[in-house]
Amino acid sequence: MTKDVFLYDATLRDGAQTEGIAFTVEDKLKIARKLDEFGIDYVEGGWPAANPTDLAFFERVREVPLRHAKLAAFGSTRRPKLSAEEDPQVRQLVELGAPVVTVVGKSWTLHVKEVLRASLERNLSMIEDSVSFCKRHGVELIFDAEHYFDGYRADPGYALETLRTAECAGADIICLCDTNGGVQSQQLVEAIQAAQGAVKTTLGIHTHNDCDLAVANTLLAVAHGVRHVQGTINGYGERCGNANLCSLIPNLQLKLGKRVVDQEALTRLYTLSHYVAEIANLPPLDRQPFVGRAAFAHKGGIHVDAVLKNPATYEHIAPDEVGNQRRLLVSDQAGTSAVVYRAAKVEVDLPKDSPEARRIVARLKEMEHQGYQFEGAEASFELLVKKTMGLYQKLFDLEGFRVIVERHPDGEILTEATIKVTVGGVSEHTACEGDGPVHALDGALRKALEPFYPNLREIKLTDFKVRVMDTEAGTAAKVRVLVESSDETESWSTVGVHENIIEASWQALVDSVEYGLMKHGEGRNNKQ
Amino acid sequence: MTKDVFLYDATLRDGAQTEGIAFTVEDKLKIARKLDEFGIDYVEGGWPAANPTDLAFFERVREVPLRHAKLAAFGSTRRPKLSAEEDPQVRQLVELGAPVVTVVGKSWTLHVKEVLRASLERNLSMIEDSVSFCKRHGVELIFDAEHYFDGYRADPGYALETLRTAECAGADIICLCDTNGGVQSQQLVEAIQAAQGAVKTTLGIHTHNDCDLAVANTLLAVAHGVRHVQGTINGYGERCGNANLCSLIPNLQLKLGKRVVDQEALTRLYTLSHYVAEIANLPPLDRQPFVGRAAFAHKGGIHVDAVLKNPATYEHIAPDEVGNQRRLLVSDQAGTSAVVYRAAKVEVDLPKDSPEARRIVARLKEMEHQGYQFEGAEASFELLVKKTMGLYQKLFDLEGFRVIVERHPDGEILTEATIKVTVGGVSEHTACEGDGPVHALDGALRKALEPFYPNLREIKLTDFKVRVMDTEAGTAAKVRVLVESSDETESWSTVGVHENIIEASWQALVDSVEYGLMKHGEGRNNKQ
Repeated sequence: MTKDVFLYDATLRDGAQTEGIAFTVEDKLKIARKLDEFGIDYVEGGWPAANPTDLAFFERVREVPLRHAKLAAFGSTRRPKLSAEEDPQVRQLVELGAPVVTVVGKSWTLHVKEVLRASLERNLSMIEDSVSFCKRHGVELIFDAEHYFDGYRADPGYALETLRTAECAGADIICLCDTNGGVQSQQLVEAIQAAQGAVKTTLGIHTHNDCDLAVANTLLAVAHGVRHVQGTINGYGERCGNANLCSLIPNLQLKLGKRVVDQEALTRLYTLSHYVAEIANLPPLDRQPFVGRAAFAHKGGIHVDAVLKNPATYEHIAPDEVGNQRRLLVSDQAGTSAVVYRAAKVEVDLPKDSPEARRIVARLKEMEHQGYQFEGAEASFELLVKKTMGLYQKLFDLEGFRVIVERHPDGEILTEATIKVTVGGVSEHTACEGDGPVHALDGALRKALEPFYPNLREIKLTDFKVRVMDTEAGTAAKVRVLVESSDETESWSTVGVHENIIEASWQALVDSVEYGLMKHGEGRNNKQ
Repeated sequence: MTKDVFLYDATLRDGAQTEGIAFTVEDKLKIARKLDEFGIDYVEGGWPAANPTDLAFFERVREVPLRHAKLAAFGSTRRPKLSAEEDPQVRQLVELGAPVVTVVGKSWTLHVKEVLRASLERNLSMIEDSVSFCKRHGVELIFDAEHYFDGYRADPGYALETLRTAECAGADIICLCDTNGGVQSQQLVEAIQAAQGAVKTTLGIHTHNDCDLAVANTLLAVAHGVRHVQGTINGYGERCGNANLCSLIPNLQLKLGKRVVDQEALTRLYTLSHYVAEIANLPPLDRQPFVGRAAFAHKGGIHVDAVLKNPATYEHIAPDEVGNQRRLLVSDQAGTSAVVYRAAKVEVDLPKDSPEARRIVARLKEMEHQGYQFEGAEASFELLVKKTMGLYQKLFDLEGFRVIVERHPDGEILTEATIKVTVGGVSEHTACEGDGPVHALDGALRKALEPFYPNLREIKLTDFKVRVMDTEAGTAAKVRVLVESSDETESWSTVGVHENIIEASWQALVDSVEYGLMKHGEGRNNKQ
C-alpha cells in the first residue's frame, strides 16, 4: 500500500507522561507489538537516557524485532558545553540499534534563554552537531522542533532558522511541535506555510490537546500538505494529552480519503484502543470518538426509533468500520423500540405493540422515576423483562435478614449478617461476618443458597458502586447501588434502589445471583 | 458588557442524553442556577413533551426565575398530520412561560423521507407552521436545523430551503446543527457560507464530537461570522457528546479575544465544570482541557524544572485564569506550601519549615494514601490542623455503637442505632431509629450529645456522598463518605474512609459535629 500519511506513535514516551500511567518493560513490549501488527509506521520506544525502563525496552525489543514499524529512539540535542560525541545521552541514541532517531531541539527563544540558558547561536550549533552526528551513524533522523509554533509567534526568523539548521545537518523529517497545546488554527496554518517556504524537508506535525484542538490541528496540517503525523493511542500524554491516533486514523482514512492503514486493520481500532487502556490501567473513556463504548450508543427515544429505521440517520459511519458496535440504551428517554430491540438480544420476542412491551416500558419509567437506572444494569433489565413475560421462576423466598455493625470501645468493628431463606420448601438460616455490611450479607446469602445451587461458587462480586440521590435530604435520601458480578465467561451488572443502603444493596445482590444462576440454567420457566 | 458571541447551554437536554446521566428535577434546578450565575445567555431546560422530569422542571423553575439567562423550552416541529395548534407538543412549548422556544426541524431529505415519512413539501410547511405559531405567542424563537450539514451535502437546495422557510416564518436565530458529528472542517465552512448567502437571520452553530472536532468546528464557525454558540458543560451529550463549553469559553475569550463572559466568571469555570460533574455523578475527566485536574499538572522532570523557572515554558495560559491550579506531581515542596497556604486560610499561622507543618504534611500524605481526600472536606482538614497544633479539645469519648438493619418477612425494614458516649465523666446511652443506618446513627449521636451541647440542634446534615474505591475488590473495597452539614450561617464538609461504610460514615459524622460545635465556641483549647 502506498501511504498518503505516515503515522508516528509516541504512546510509549509521551503517553507514559500521563498522570496515573507507569508502564513496565513488559507493558511497553506488548504495546509496541500491537502497534506494529496494526500497521503504525514509526513506534517511539522511549527516551533511554531519561528512564531506565526505556533503556531496558530497547534492549529487550531486539529479541523479536518489529515487522512493519520502524523503532525510534528519542533524545534531545547535546548539552551546551559538550560535543555530540562527548554527550553520553546523544551517543547512546545511535548505539541502541534503533533504525530511527528522534532528536528534540528548541525553536523558541524563551526556552533557549530561560531553560537552556544558552545563547541563540549556541542552540543552533547544538541542533547542527546533534543531527549531523546521528546522521553519520546511518539512522533515519527526525528533528522535533519543540515549541515551534510558540517560537514562530515570538521570533519567526529564529524559529525558521532552527528548521534550516536541522535541514542542513541532514534531518530526514522535521516535525513541527505545538508542545504546550496552545496554538489556534489560524496561527498554525501561517506557521506551517512559513516552514514550507523555509525548508524542503518532509514536514511532520505533533500537537497537544490543551485547547481541545489537537486532532483538528493535526488534520489541518495534513490538509496543508504535512505527511508525517505524530500522536498517541487514546490521546495519552502530559497534561491534557497528545493528538489521539484513535481519532486521527479514522478521520484521515474514512473522512478525508487518505491511505493510512489497511482497511482490515481499521476494524481492529476498537481493540487497539481498549488493549492499550487495559495495559495503562486507565478506564476507557466511554464517550471517546470512534472507539468509546458510547460512540454508537443511542439513548433518546427519537434517535433509537430512527436508527432502527436506518442507522445513517444518527451514525456518521458504520460502527464496524472501526470495530465498534451499536448499542440502544434503555432509559425513560427511550421508548418501546429500544425495549423490543434489547429484549430480542436476550432472545425474547416482544412485538412492539404488544401489551407486554407497553407494560415493560411503563414499569421501566416508573422504576426510573424512583431512581433505578438500567443503562448500567443490563442484567436487572433482562430479569425484569423475563419476569414480566412469565419466563422466570423464583429461585428462593426471603424470610428475612439482619445486619449488625458494632463498634467496640477499643475501636474494633464487628459486622455480622444473618439470613433466612426457603428453597423449595426447605428453610436455611445462615450467618456470616464481613468487612462491611454488604460483604457480610453477600456471604450469608451465598452460604444459604450454595447447598441448592453449587454453581454459585463460580459467581464473584467484582464491583460495587453507590450513588446517593436527592442529596438535599441528607442521610434520609435514596441510595442507588450498582453491583457488578462475573463468572469465568462473562460479567453483568445489577441495580437496587432504597432509602436504606442495605436494602438497596440486597436488591442488587439478589438480581446478581438470580441472573448468574439463570445463565447456568436455573430459574427458567419451562412452561414457556 | 457587549458580547461578541452568545452562549446557549444544552446540558439539561442534550447533556441528559449522556449514558449514565439521569438528572432529577432538583439536579436540573441546581445546574440551571449555576449556569445563570456564571453568565450563560440561554439555558435550555429540556423537552417537556418527551420527559416528565423536564416538564416538572419548567414548573418548578418559575418559583425563582433566572436572573441573567433566558430560559429555553425545546420541542420539534408539528406532526405531519396535525396543525401546530392541534399538536399538544407544540402548544405546550408556548404555554410553559419560557421566553425562548427552540424548535428543531429536519434539513436532511433522508430524515424527511425515512424518519418523518413525509413529503419534502410537507416538511417545509411543518417548519413554517410551527415557527410562526410560536412567534405569534411572542417568544424569541430559535430554529435548530437538524442535520443541516449532512442535509447540505445530500441536497444543498433543499437544506437551504428549510432555512429560508424558518426565516420567513419569523425565526430569530437559525442554528446549523451537525447532529451526527460527522462533518469535516472544509465541508463545514462551505455549508456555513451557503447559509449566509441564503438567509439574513442570525446564525448559530451546534456540533457533536463524533470526529473529535466539535470544539474546533464551533470555533471555525465563529471565525466565519457565527455568533450564537450551542454546547454543554463538560461536553456531555448523546454518543461522544456535544461541543464542550468548558473548552469553547476560554478558547473564545482568552485565545480569540471574543467577549463571552465576565473575566471574573471565567475564573469560576473550573468550579462550574466540577459542580456539574458532581451532580451528574460522573467522575471528572482529569485530562479535560482547561478544567481537568491534570490540565496544568507536570510530571516529566524537565517540564517540572522548566515550569519552576518560568510557568510559560510549559503552560499555554495561567491556570488561575480559568480557576484551575498548577500541580507539580513530583514535588514535596509543593505539598508543604499548599498546607501552609490552606492553614493560613483557617487563621492558623504555620511557618513553612516548622515541625508542625512537616508533621501535618506527613499525616496528610499518609491519610491520602489510605483514600482520604481533603479537597472536598475542608472542615476535616481544619480539624486535622487544629488537632495537630494542640488547638482543639475532644468533646466526647465514644464507648461504642451498634447498628441493626432488619428485614422482616413482610418486606418491612427496621433500622436502629444505639450509642454509648461519655462527656466530662458522664455516660449517655441512647437509641434511635432511622430511614437507613447512617440516619439512625446520626439520630442516636444527637440524642446523646444534645443535653451537653444544645447548639447541636442548629446543625443539620444536608448532603451525603459515597464513593467506593479500588472497586475491583467488590464489597470488601474501601468506602469514602463525604458529609455536608450546615447551620444558619454556613455549610461545611467532612470525610471518613473505611472498609465498612458505617464506620466511614461515623468518622465523617463526628468531624461534622465537632466542627459545627467548635464554630459555636465549644472544644477550643483555652490554653492557647
